[in-house]
Amino acid sequence: MQQPIGIGLAGLGNVGAGVYKHLLANRNLLRERLGLDLEVRRIAVRDTARRAAEGFPAEILTPHWRDLVEDPSVQIVVEVMGRKEESLALILESIARKKVVVTANKALLAEHGREIFEAATQYGVPVFYEAAVGGGIPIIKALREALIGNHIVSIHGIINGTSNYILTRMQEAGLGFPEALAEAQSKGYAEPDPSFDVNGWDAAHKAVILASLAYGFWVPTDKIFVEGIEALTSADFRFARQLGYGIKLLGIIKAKSAEFGSEIEVRVHPTLVPEKHVLASVNGVFNAVAVHGNVVGETLFYGRGAGQDPTSSAILCDIAEAAEALVNPRRNLGFMPHGLYGSCKPLDEILCEYYLRLCVQDRPGVIAQIAGILADLHIGISSIFQPESEDEGSTVPLVMMIHTASHAQIGAALERISALDCVRKPTQMIRVEHFS
Amino acid sequence: MQQPIGIGLAGLGNVGAGVYKHLLANRNLLRERLGLDLEVRRIAVRDTARRAAEGFPAEILTPHWRDLVEDPSVQIVVEVMGRKEESLALILESIARKKVVVTANKALLAEHGREIFEAATQYGVPVFYEAAVGGGIPIIKALREALIGNHIVSIHGIINGTSNYILTRMQEAGLGFPEALAEAQSKGYAEPDPSFDVNGWDAAHKAVILASLAYGFWVPTDKIFVEGIEALTSADFRFARQLGYGIKLLGIIKAKSAEFGSEIEVRVHPTLVPEKHVLASVNGVFNAVAVHGNVVGETLFYGRGAGQDPTSSAILCDIAEAAEALVNPRRNLGFMPHGLYGSCKPLDEILCEYYLRLCVQDRPGVIAQIAGILADLHIGISSIFQPESEDEGSTVPLVMMIHTASHAQIGAALERISALDCVRKPTQMIRVEHFS
Repeated sequence: MQQPIGIGLAGLGNVGAGVYKHLLANRNLLRERLGLDLEVRRIAVRDTARRAAEGFPAEILTPHWRDLVEDPSVQIVVEVMGRKEESLALILESIARKKVVVTANKALLAEHGREIFEAATQYGVPVFYEAAVGGGIPIIKALREALIGNHIVSIHGIINGTSNYILTRMQEAGLGFPEALAEAQSKGYAEPDPSFDVNGWDAAHKAVILASLAYGFWVPTDKIFVEGIEALTSADFRFARQLGYGIKLLGIIKAKSAEFGSEIEVRVHPTLVPEKHVLASVNGVFNAVAVHGNVVGETLFYGRGAGQDPTSSAILCDIAEAAEALVNPRRNLGFMPHGLYGSCKPLDEILCEYYLRLCVQDRPGVIAQIAGILADLHIGISSIFQPESEDEGSTVPLVMMIHTASHAQIGAALERISALDCVRKPTQMIRVEHFS
Repeated sequence: MQQPIGIGLAGLGNVGAGVYKHLLANRNLLRERLGLDLEVRRIAVRDTARRAAEGFPAEILTPHWRDLVEDPSVQIVVEVMGRKEESLALILESIARKKVVVTANKALLAEHGREIFEAATQYGVPVFYEAAVGGGIPIIKALREALIGNHIVSIHGIINGTSNYILTRMQEAGLGFPEALAEAQSKGYAEPDPSFDVNGWDAAHKAVILASLAYGFWVPTDKIFVEGIEALTSADFRFARQLGYGIKLLGIIKAKSAEFGSEIEVRVHPTLVPEKHVLASVNGVFNAVAVHGNVVGETLFYGRGAGQDPTSSAILCDIAEAAEALVNPRRNLGFMPHGLYGSCKPLDEILCEYYLRLCVQDRPGVIAQIAGILADLHIGISSIFQPESEDEGSTVPLVMMIHTASHAQIGAALERISALDCVRKPTQMIRVEHFS
């Protein structure tokens, strides 16, 4: 047995403390399976005195993350600070010192992935990030390794546990968005400022990482479509159920083919999912990612998408790979850029099916006017139904399911429909996905 | 770019032909992602003339698998012959020639895994076998790598697509076992001789591989409990549903802790699964494996468990790893033996809950007699119900749900119950699993 491999832990929040705890508890198991021993040699954390009082070994605590970079006994740097500039600096400096990097920082990867992996390539140092998407679900490894022989036709992921908890409660208990959010906060599933979880951007960062990995180039965050769950109402869940659908916040990634220059699309939005599809029954804080490969067909990966323990599990996997990579170099440094897929489809050209919920005057001729506009724009209607009306004065809800149309087409239609005298309030539009 | 890496394909049946086809079709994609080019240099197949006529390149076909071993341009041997002695000989000779091996041969691994990996260790040559369990589901990689930091608390797998198709049809269409089997055969989901699929042994071989990987020692096939699905009746599905359960053939693997010498249990049998658990909704030929790790919690991996394309996807993954291992050596040769877990729990000591369906005389005192026997043996009853009786003359069905008891206890109880005058026909016993 060689000398233990030295780990530097940057950050001792919820995730950092979990990694430390489980590395100690499962150290024997890891040593047996890996054939290498792992030891935490240095921990960077702001309040060292408090952490020492909590029982963390005082002699390895430091308030300066740069101490990890400069410590020659630290061979693997685990970045779980979750900051921006500092985390980027730590990662880039670690790479330059030939320390293998493990990070769970999804926002940083989505925004600086290209820069990080250019440095990784320059220095020949791998960067692992299994914990950045899907918590304990090994979706990064699945895409990078297990499905390496597959052109990825599509990915549909429930990749934000907070919003999935809220949507589950809206669906099952008929709560409105504010009530479901408040409940999620009281249970610790949503942060006091829940913006990034409910506005779709946490899921969007993760979708960018999955898309980049699947298609070999770092997808720019301004080329993706992102819409949050704040505007959903309990009525939408009720009407969707009557039509045979649940509503989920999905990260959706697609590419037509693996031919050179093939365009991809990446979007995150509330989505009507057929109740029979397994994604519709992924509830609460659980995550799931359905991957359709052109060889394997449909696969699905399910588990806890956040929390101390599941995230620690993914980081332990990365640490084990990092340790192996220190002993035996590897070609794949965590991301293999290539030019098979070219660019992102312009957002206006993205094709979807749609659910529309309008609030219209209760008089003859209304449907004809709306259908006329859609016909003008060559948009097909697959069904129209008028749900049981709650008392809304002289207006009634009208639900329409719309055939495949581009974002540009449906946008133009909604603009004209909203301008009609007989249509009140903003119209609700939710995209619909069907699965092959 | 280096010279292409040479592959020898042993076997050109359904799976072999799929591997060849997809290797060609996705060759560019694999080269971009892997940084290595892959080329099939030799194919061993019995009827070379027929295969050449079908369009396979005649110059690389040979009727002798040993030609692959002896060809210095073949660096990776892919064994998809699915035979016994010949496959074992091919694998061992390939290892001795330092050729990296990929195999989908589950029966061979379950019975000769120890021998194969002793040779692999001796020669420092890896052996990959992702396709041996779960078809396109990367469950081998998940257990070996992604969950490396986890003590595996339990695995519950639907790992035989044929039997899952049959059980799904019995459940959904109310078919009896013979009718469901005949339907599976007519659709090509069951072979003309379906023995290994329906008697549980195909699933048992896969369970042995999963257990061995999870616990670091090759589990002897005579230490596991195996029961097939042949004795299930449509009445069992009906009664189970009334109690809130579906019935699945599960491979079940458990270990209490990761302490030195901890005993494990491996069993394959029809199982009552709570309808709400996601495994209960895995239908048709799909497979799914639920893995509970002590760090990650519950995870689930889902996909097509058999067929040309999903199996090819797994083999392409293995070929990519094999190619990488040729360029950069690795410590983990596909199986890391260790002594943390000792042995298998004696079958008599395995604890389960049980569903019993008895056929009893329709007269007072019968339940008291049966309950008395169970009480004598310290076996608890959690519920008793008498389903709507079909016309069975003077007898009626009686369903009992039994609390946790050992195999030995329930065996003794059934022996005494069967001897009662008031009990007719053999009693049906199905094990029940609940999930934390």
